[in-house]
Amino acid sequence: MGDIAWHRKDLLSIYDLESEEISLILDTAEEFKKVSERNVKKVPALRGKTVVNFFVEPSTRTRMSFELAEHRLSADIVNIAADSSSLRKGETLLDTVRNIEALQIDLIVIRHSAPGAPMLIAKNISCGVLNAGDGAHAHPTQALLDLFTIREKKGRLRGLKVTIIGDILHSRVARSNIWGLLKLGAEVTLAGPSTLVPRDFEKIGVRVCHDLRSAIEDADVVNLLRIQHERQRAGFFPSVNEYARFFGLNETTEKYLKPDALVMHPGPINRGVELASTVADGPRSVILEQVTNGLAVRMAVLFLVAGCMNK
Amino acid sequence: MGDIAWHRKDLLSIYDLESEEISLILDTAEEFKKVSERNVKKVPALRGKTVVNFFVEPSTRTRMSFELAEHRLSADIVNIAADSSSLRKGETLLDTVRNIEALQIDLIVIRHSAPGAPMLIAKNISCGVLNAGDGAHAHPTQALLDLFTIREKKGRLRGLKVTIIGDILHSRVARSNIWGLLKLGAEVTLAGPSTLVPRDFEKIGVRVCHDLRSAIEDADVVNLLRIQHERQRAGFFPSVNEYARFFGLNETTEKYLKPDALVMHPGPINRGVELASTVADGPRSVILEQVTNGLAVRMAVLFLVAGCMNK
Amino acid sequence: MGDIAWHRKDLLSIYDLESEEISLILDTAEEFKKVSERNVKKVPALRGKTVVNFFVEPSTRTRMSFELAEHRLSADIVNIAADSSSLRKGETLLDTVRNIEALQIDLIVIRHSAPGAPMLIAKNISCGVLNAGDGAHAHPTQALLDLFTIREKKGRLRGLKVTIIGDILHSRVARSNIWGLLKLGAEVTLAGPSTLVPRDFEKIGVRVCHDLRSAIEDADVVNLLRIQHERQRAGFFPSVNEYARFFGLNETTEKYLKPDALVMHPGPINRGVELASTVADGPRSVILEQVTNGLAVRMAVLFLVAGCMNK
Repeated sequence: MGDIAWHRKDLLSIYDLESEEISLILDTAEEFKKVSERNVKKVPALRGKTVVNFFVEPSTRTRMSFELAEHRLSADIVNIAADSSSLRKGETLLDTVRNIEALQIDLIVIRHSAPGAPMLIAKNISCGVLNAGDGAHAHPTQALLDLFTIREKKGRLRGLKVTIIGDILHSRVARSNIWGLLKLGAEVTLAGPSTLVPRDFEKIGVRVCHDLRSAIEDADVVNLLRIQHERQRAGFFPSVNEYARFFGLNETTEKYLKPDALVMHPGPINRGVELASTVADGPRSVILEQVTNGLAVRMAVLFLVAGCMNK
Repeated sequence: MGDIAWHRKDLLSIYDLESEEISLILDTAEEFKKVSERNVKKVPALRGKTVVNFFVEPSTRTRMSFELAEHRLSADIVNIAADSSSLRKGETLLDTVRNIEALQIDLIVIRHSAPGAPMLIAKNISCGVLNAGDGAHAHPTQALLDLFTIREKKGRLRGLKVTIIGDILHSRVARSNIWGLLKLGAEVTLAGPSTLVPRDFEKIGVRVCHDLRSAIEDADVVNLLRIQHERQRAGFFPSVNEYARFFGLNETTEKYLKPDALVMHPGPINRGVELASTVADGPRSVILEQVTNGLAVRMAVLFLVAGCMNK
Repeated sequence: MGDIAWHRKDLLSIYDLESEEISLILDTAEEFKKVSERNVKKVPALRGKTVVNFFVEPSTRTRMSFELAEHRLSADIVNIAADSSSLRKGETLLDTVRNIEALQIDLIVIRHSAPGAPMLIAKNISCGVLNAGDGAHAHPTQALLDLFTIREKKGRLRGLKVTIIGDILHSRVARSNIWGLLKLGAEVTLAGPSTLVPRDFEKIGVRVCHDLRSAIEDADVVNLLRIQHERQRAGFFPSVNEYARFFGLNETTEKYLKPDALVMHPGPINRGVELASTVADGPRSVILEQVTNGLAVRMAVLFLVAGCMNK
């Protein structure tokens, strides 16, 4: 699986990784994708290892994807949800995770509303830490599964034009995708209302565009982010209908796309808002393949991080 | 295990099944009941298969019974509860289950408050779907464990007189039992206040009776349904005490029963309402045996449905 | 593992146990502690056995510790939380656990807010019952892990001076510790405000002390209990700050301790209240080792109780 080795006990953000490390994860995920196509979908790679899924912020799809990846690697799994946690009793986050560490756990998968929480934990404990999303900061496994899907469909990432549309300002998915795409040589365009896609993003080497047509007509890939209704209430855009009209991908605006453009979405979809059903379920959509690939990518990062801890 | 083979990827309702299919499930459950009596209660039948328990409506006993059945078949298990689900974020049910399917799950066990939800899902995805109760529509595994218990205790179903007492109108347990009993040749009487047991039920070939004594004095089996207090508030009967007096099985009304009549209840029991403790814990009661048999029946349906998917 | 054998199907309280039984658990835990230091941390001791973690009162750390112990013994695990339980539907506790028993479970680990609930259950069902904390009554595995930690660090328990500080009145941890320490020959001092540490405790053979310095200056071990803010509201002490000033262990009061005194805490810590961070994280603290030892102790009791059930 490549010439370079993995030497990190944690996966915290795409920003930290060298492009060779990203490629190693994607290559490893390719191998694991084959495992999930077998009749018996398990390998004993993490047998006897314990993984704690510590989701302080609720999640179904990311938690399920990690949990299934852990099952397929034969790990022992313990789930902790926010509301049952000692955090409610006023314990500090570090005390909670030091307790988890004292239980001789091997890996912690953490989702937390506070940006940086996974980093704080990773620095203070010897367990491996996988960031499953921290505030608006990072969601590295989502970006990795997006990169995997693009590479699988297009054969490469270098030189591809990728447009991300939506609430870039508040999106950890966008941030992690941007860093991953830039590191692997893609060209990135960000699109959406100027309140949600400020010009400042240009400083990190991406194109910012406030017009849908010019944002997508050259794109090889269009990645639509979920519009959260609470943003409307906060005044970032006048109404969901207005957003759908100007930045939604639907039967009309789909015509601007190149015939072989990929349509992606991290889910869950707001059908009729950022994405019309005809497009979500249409031939360009690879949305469900993203989900399938997420499992392979998470198996890969769990495997690499656990392997590093044995050394 | 019988001459006929199982050819369904789903178990959605008893109504759909041929009597031979019901008998095949009961015969298979007999074999699995023996597994649970061993010291090591596991068989490797579903090793490497993944089952998602998707309980959109809360449940303890049915969820536990399915989860234990899955453990004993060596499946990998993921639980999703309603409140942690993406449904809360406005995702459609079909999008949620298509995501589950994209994670290469093998079987989904679903409980949902909407009648028909399991059918909708089963039509749209390739995973096997087991209905663990949908609204007032169907609860096939409950009916199967009731049939199993009667057949085990009485040696047969054909020609037996079975009386179901309670809120038939709102009960998925009653509906599934009625179809199963009729298909296997039993005679069914429904009893309760006329608001909860309308005469219309006679059209499907059962006897409707609004007097407890005449409903139970010939019965080989009496199955009491749980009375839900919210029905009283909705005006279906004047008070729980009134219900208990006219339709409860207690020391007085038990005397109408034949000596060898079976007393059944799907649980949880409202002691002192539909069933007095002396009867619930008395010699005619097979209530806890129903629970034990539920495990065997659920192992059987998981096994049959999973086996069909491998073909 | 000692000359005496284990002959109980339940672990309900330390009060019930002979000192030889306590020592047997501690000796067995020593063996299991070695398992957790291996690369593959599992033994097949409970393979095919089913353990239900029935936490009617919420808990993270005790539940996690039990769940990990069960994983390491290769048990099948089912978790039931209070809010999803049939108890909400008005089912009696005994009916709920008789249902669990009917599902052919082997062991139930129960936490309940009602003192005596585990005993009630244990008397009525054939499954093994492990008390994971019942009201203010008992928390035997916490006491056992405290005894284990002291014995490991000090080489013995007989003749040691152990001081427990805090809300003794409402603490199951204190009660179970007191019985365990007395049975194994330690001298126990209880300290705290007189509202929370009444003189009545002297009748069971312990010293009661309302002055911190005299309570700790001779102590080999100081065990601090978590101060619950709701006690302040109930008028047991004037304010948390006042409590911290008179009974908190901090940089100033730590000077009264012997150099080799152990500082213990069952967690979660209220930093700055009963324990200052300098002490909690200082060289005398064995708080995280208590957590690690809890896993070994719980493996030991699960193993002993399950072994007894096979006979």
